[in-house]
Amino acid sequence: MNDQTRLDAQQRLTSAAGHIRGIERMVADDAYCIDVIKQIQAVQAALSKVSTLLLDNHLRTCVTTAIQGDDADERERMLQEITSVFTVTGKK
Amino acid sequence: MNDQTRLDAQQRLTSAAGHIRGIERMVADDAYCIDVIKQIQAVQAALSKVSTLLLDNHLRTCVTTAIQGDDADERERMLQEITSVFTVTGKK
Amino acid sequence: MNDQTRLDAQQRLTSAAGHIRGIERMVADDAYCIDVIKQIQAVQAALSKVSTLLLDNHLRTCVTTAIQGDDADERERMLQEITSVFTVTGKK
Amino acid sequence: MNDQTRLDAQQRLTSAAGHIRGIERMVADDAYCIDVIKQIQAVQAALSKVSTLLLDNHLRTCVTTAIQGDDADERERMLQEITSVFTVTGKK
Repeated sequence: MNDQTRLDAQQRLTSAAGHIRGIERMVADDAYCIDVIKQIQAVQAALSKVSTLLLDNHLRTCVTTAIQGDDADERERMLQEITSVFTVTGKK
Repeated sequence: MNDQTRLDAQQRLTSAAGHIRGIERMVADDAYCIDVIKQIQAVQAALSKVSTLLLDNHLRTCVTTAIQGDDADERERMLQEITSVFTVTGKK
Repeated sequence: MNDQTRLDAQQRLTSAAGHIRGIERMVADDAYCIDVIKQIQAVQAALSKVSTLLLDNHLRTCVTTAIQGDDADERERMLQEITSVFTVTGKK
Repeated sequence: MNDQTRLDAQQRLTSAAGHIRGIERMVADDAYCIDVIKQIQAVQAALSKVSTLLLDNHLRTCVTTAIQGDDADERERMLQEITSVFTVTGKK
């Protein structure tokens, strides 16, 4: 993972963790359920951005190296992994 | 929010926040990007369960009270809110 | 289902079916895969709008009748159904 | 697109179009809204499978060729496209 991606991902994850602690307080304070659901949806969207960052980085590093390399099994594994996270995202 | 829902939601949110701190460590340790993405997808799924808990509770309390009440505007507001979180969930 | 909802839903479904036939032609013509995926995503989004229409209508008719009625089992069934389609949507 | 992928995608798309026509009939027959929504969710899931098929094929053909090729701009375009369909899928 390049430094920029790592830093960006860490900042977003720290923010998401803080956001969830805020939602915990909303629940403790008996906040309106719909407002809490909307905050959860916002955190889920923010987490999706981290996934996209990491996928982009992965495509440019590991996947590119594998596709340019000679190890057909390694290449096959990498391509299946991308399809699998794409599939889970479609079901998330 | 009834006590059971609040307790359950809080436990799941605390677990999700902890899960994200674990993902932060994965990123700091330069873990394999696909593994990190899969952990993010797991947290997002866990957060969806909290939303479902809260929606179920909301339907049985605030929405039922509003639909059984005489305030048509209040009822309208409640029904639109459910449709809006359903729509966002479909786009999440 | 009220007439407006039925008409609106039917028009959107007819359009979605036509859109899919267009995508079939793209595949037959060996169109660029990413373009085909984007068209599929557009149809899925259009279908989500139909679901939202139907949920909104359902809330205002069957659910309201059940919640205002005396049949606790019927009410319970209705509330569980809403939570279940919300859950599936979150996983879709 | 290889023949197997094309055939598979076409069969699934034809099935999805037929499924939607069935849903149109459900709406015309004033079927229960929740049942209709569940059928729509089933079609959306079936369409996601077609997207996954096409992405898998795209990774093995166009993306592999571009990454093994010398055209850096072409490679960049391909990688951005994958990230963009991943992002839209996460928001679908």
